[in-house]
Amino acid sequence: MAIKMYDLAGAELDRRFSPFCWRTKLALAHKGLEFETIPWRYADKPKIAFAGAERVPVIVDGERPVADSWKIAEYLEDQYPERPSLFGGAGGRGAARFVNSWADTVLNGALSRLLVVDILNHLEPGDRAYFRESREKRFGMTLEAFAADSERHLGALRKALEPLRVTLAGQPFIGGASPLYPDYIVFGSLQWARAIGRTRLLEPDDPLEGWRGRLLDAFGGLARNAPGYW
Amino acid sequence: MAIKMYDLAGAELDRRFSPFCWRTKLALAHKGLEFETIPWRYADKPKIAFAGAERVPVIVDGERPVADSWKIAEYLEDQYPERPSLFGGAGGRGAARFVNSWADTVLNGALSRLLVVDILNHLEPGDRAYFRESREKRFGMTLEAFAADSERHLGALRKALEPLRVTLAGQPFIGGASPLYPDYIVFGSLQWARAIGRTRLLEPDDPLEGWRGRLLDAFGGLARNAPGYW
Repeated sequence: MAIKMYDLAGAELDRRFSPFCWRTKLALAHKGLEFETIPWRYADKPKIAFAGAERVPVIVDGERPVADSWKIAEYLEDQYPERPSLFGGAGGRGAARFVNSWADTVLNGALSRLLVVDILNHLEPGDRAYFRESREKRFGMTLEAFAADSERHLGALRKALEPLRVTLAGQPFIGGASPLYPDYIVFGSLQWARAIGRTRLLEPDDPLEGWRGRLLDAFGGLARNAPGYW
Repeated sequence: MAIKMYDLAGAELDRRFSPFCWRTKLALAHKGLEFETIPWRYADKPKIAFAGAERVPVIVDGERPVADSWKIAEYLEDQYPERPSLFGGAGGRGAARFVNSWADTVLNGALSRLLVVDILNHLEPGDRAYFRESREKRFGMTLEAFAADSERHLGALRKALEPLRVTLAGQPFIGGASPLYPDYIVFGSLQWARAIGRTRLLEPDDPLEGWRGRLLDAFGGLARNAPGYW
């Protein structure tokens, strides 16, 4: 039976933009597990309460719900050890948490400045008031003020990606010779930007574009075939 | 026969401050390999030319020289596979390179602003002119200008460490349950700051202090027993 996954959707049901949900979709594909997504919007919080969750991704594997992208990755690794490893060993799991922490704070922090208005504009109208109120409370300012000075934020993002460029100068993927969960963590953030942002955040000659292209093509083009702008 | 390691030294021969050399010393200790350090100063470049190197660390294992902290870590892992792993598997090696790249760019970049004058003051007088000239060329400004506004740089450093705090909220070491090479990479940078900087860069209640303390104590206090200010 296919694993079910609640996946953040905007006004267009097939435009899936959550970076955390992209991590999980690529992890499921990496494990070769069949899954079907259930589009979910912020107004649908009651629909995931059974999992003790207020946010997606949430998966349901048989009868078992698991919430939170990191916990899902650990669950899949432990539940399906005979399938391709997401972490490539215990040391890989440890260091993957560092990549996860870096993406959650530095990378997604920089991206949120650049994408917050795009998110708003792509949401189902019924989700917009919730999004604005909750984010303005979190940021301590209006969304427009948070997003102001986008040229500076774009520069900050490109600079923040420097450790990834240095890494990929030495090996084709963060995982090494082939992609592992840390690749999906970071790629998920760029897939977020691609899904809802019309601005190409990476220069065409950015060395990261080769890596991103390989991940767009992975698993039969799972990510490339999803709606996106670049 | 003990492995020989060329280790950056200042005016006081036993005050060893290179973050890259600390990575290597802790990696050698992790592998349980006997080693002896040879104090090395910038003026001693001809002494490591046999290894094709201009910088330390350089190790000599039997007859074989290996230069560059990352290459040394890979060499030790591959040459001594029966000893405790530095990476904890192939995925760990891949992601360790990301941690290495983050430390080389973000972390050491922030620290160099805070430490550059301390470095100068701890160098053997014969090394100072070389250090000033080479660094001022690299930074495109005087050392004093590079170090100005230290309060801001201290704030930037503490913020840059946030991914590490998030990681260590979930597990005791970057490696997971026990330390691996990524821990030594990041700790090496803080050991640099401890060796030559009189300013305590982490607040006593910073959650990183628990992790740093465990690494100071590791391997019989290898790092704690080295000269340092905090």
